[in-house]
Amino acid sequence: MITQAEIDEFVLNGARIYIPHVSLDCAIFGYHEQQLKLLLIKHKAVDGWCLPGGYIKRTEKLADAAARNVKERTGVDGLFLQQFKTFGDPNRVKFEEIDEQLWYRIMGVKITKDNWLIDQTISVGFYAITDFSRTVLEPGFLAVECAWFDIDALPKLEFDHDEMVREALHTMRIQLYHYPIGYNMLPGKFTLSEIHALYQTMLGKKLDVSNFTKKLIALGLLKKLDEKRSIGAHRSPHLYSFVKERYEEALNEGIVLS
Amino acid sequence: MITQAEIDEFVLNGARIYIPHVSLDCAIFGYHEQQLKLLLIKHKAVDGWCLPGGYIKRTEKLADAAARNVKERTGVDGLFLQQFKTFGDPNRVKFEEIDEQLWYRIMGVKITKDNWLIDQTISVGFYAITDFSRTVLEPGFLAVECAWFDIDALPKLEFDHDEMVREALHTMRIQLYHYPIGYNMLPGKFTLSEIHALYQTMLGKKLDVSNFTKKLIALGLLKKLDEKRSIGAHRSPHLYSFVKERYEEALNEGIVLS
Repeated sequence: MITQAEIDEFVLNGARIYIPHVSLDCAIFGYHEQQLKLLLIKHKAVDGWCLPGGYIKRTEKLADAAARNVKERTGVDGLFLQQFKTFGDPNRVKFEEIDEQLWYRIMGVKITKDNWLIDQTISVGFYAITDFSRTVLEPGFLAVECAWFDIDALPKLEFDHDEMVREALHTMRIQLYHYPIGYNMLPGKFTLSEIHALYQTMLGKKLDVSNFTKKLIALGLLKKLDEKRSIGAHRSPHLYSFVKERYEEALNEGIVLS
Repeated sequence: MITQAEIDEFVLNGARIYIPHVSLDCAIFGYHEQQLKLLLIKHKAVDGWCLPGGYIKRTEKLADAAARNVKERTGVDGLFLQQFKTFGDPNRVKFEEIDEQLWYRIMGVKITKDNWLIDQTISVGFYAITDFSRTVLEPGFLAVECAWFDIDALPKLEFDHDEMVREALHTMRIQLYHYPIGYNMLPGKFTLSEIHALYQTMLGKKLDVSNFTKKLIALGLLKKLDEKRSIGAHRSPHLYSFVKERYEEALNEGIVLS
């Protein structure tokens, strides 16, 4: 629980701890059984939904700040996490239009027009991918609510966050052709149908199952196990697992999958 | 020519015009006849080479600030220009270690330790692609020199700019599979060998010429003209041009080329 003294310190002296004029926003995508969802929060200062975000400590790397933010909201760490774009349109956020009395009700301390929280801010966008069934949501101190929404049924978002989500999805879908995903989202041993379903859902389009899985195997990412899963009469598909070293290498160096 | 009064204003009141704590750096790649080069500058405050960069006006979109910067250095506008990554490692730049007297010699005005130019800065990285034979270089007011370097013979760069170049190349090479390039770098009518050579050089790897050009044609990006070029006895390859509308659409929506 955050105390009023801590909030006062954040409002009045936050620019000594955090880099002013810079924030981050996270598009956290959740996958489970062929469903793709996005995590949204309700900020105390605005009526609608937006992406979770935060500030970057002066002692912190950007990716560490994003990982901290994602961990605080979902309870999960070690996710697939990538920058997708930095947003700096002068009109992107109008915090200076928010009423001083509303700020006071939220913060319990006066926020004047020259406060670091009000001044123009660019925001570094990160996206993360997780299994939404494994998360424990926590809105955080400036938010009242936090929830998963189906990617096809998102509400209209505040600020420039509709654009952020479009850009995050676009970049994520391009990067799926160049970085492997699946760890922490598939069981340790999985069928080719399961990884195929994961990619189809994330890409939002049909993939030829045979070509797609051949390519993953040709890239050395998958290893066929001496084990099958029985899923019905005459149906017992082979199980596969990731080749860990090759997977890590592909994350670092990139691949060409299509 | 910039006057001393303008420099004074930039140093003393720059944080009113530009967003403090945020800069941009540009990896400008130049292509010509199967050569790939990178534009570097020598900053007045440091001994070695670095990427050209600058600040973002409070009234300006990030991409417009980057385009302005690239135009100022090369004389060219309307280039292929993309963000590749934002850099925020706390140790990335140590401007505060630069001697006050050196700053004074460069600027003709005292830069104290609390000046906006010295405080911690994150930098938004953009890359651009141009034909280096068409550029007219101009170092800019904080630089003494500006030159094209072969991508395989770069000097060691200052600050975190070696990492920036690695990341810019990596992102550019991934994005070549998803956005078309070639406008302003190939003649209006070109042979399949010419576009193949452009992509091979930019990607830094061999591509099967037949599969590659079939794919470009299948994506609707190229149109075969009723015209050939005579390049020797019995050698007169067909000429092609870009399908402008399809090219623009592919730039906006992305493609899958491989």
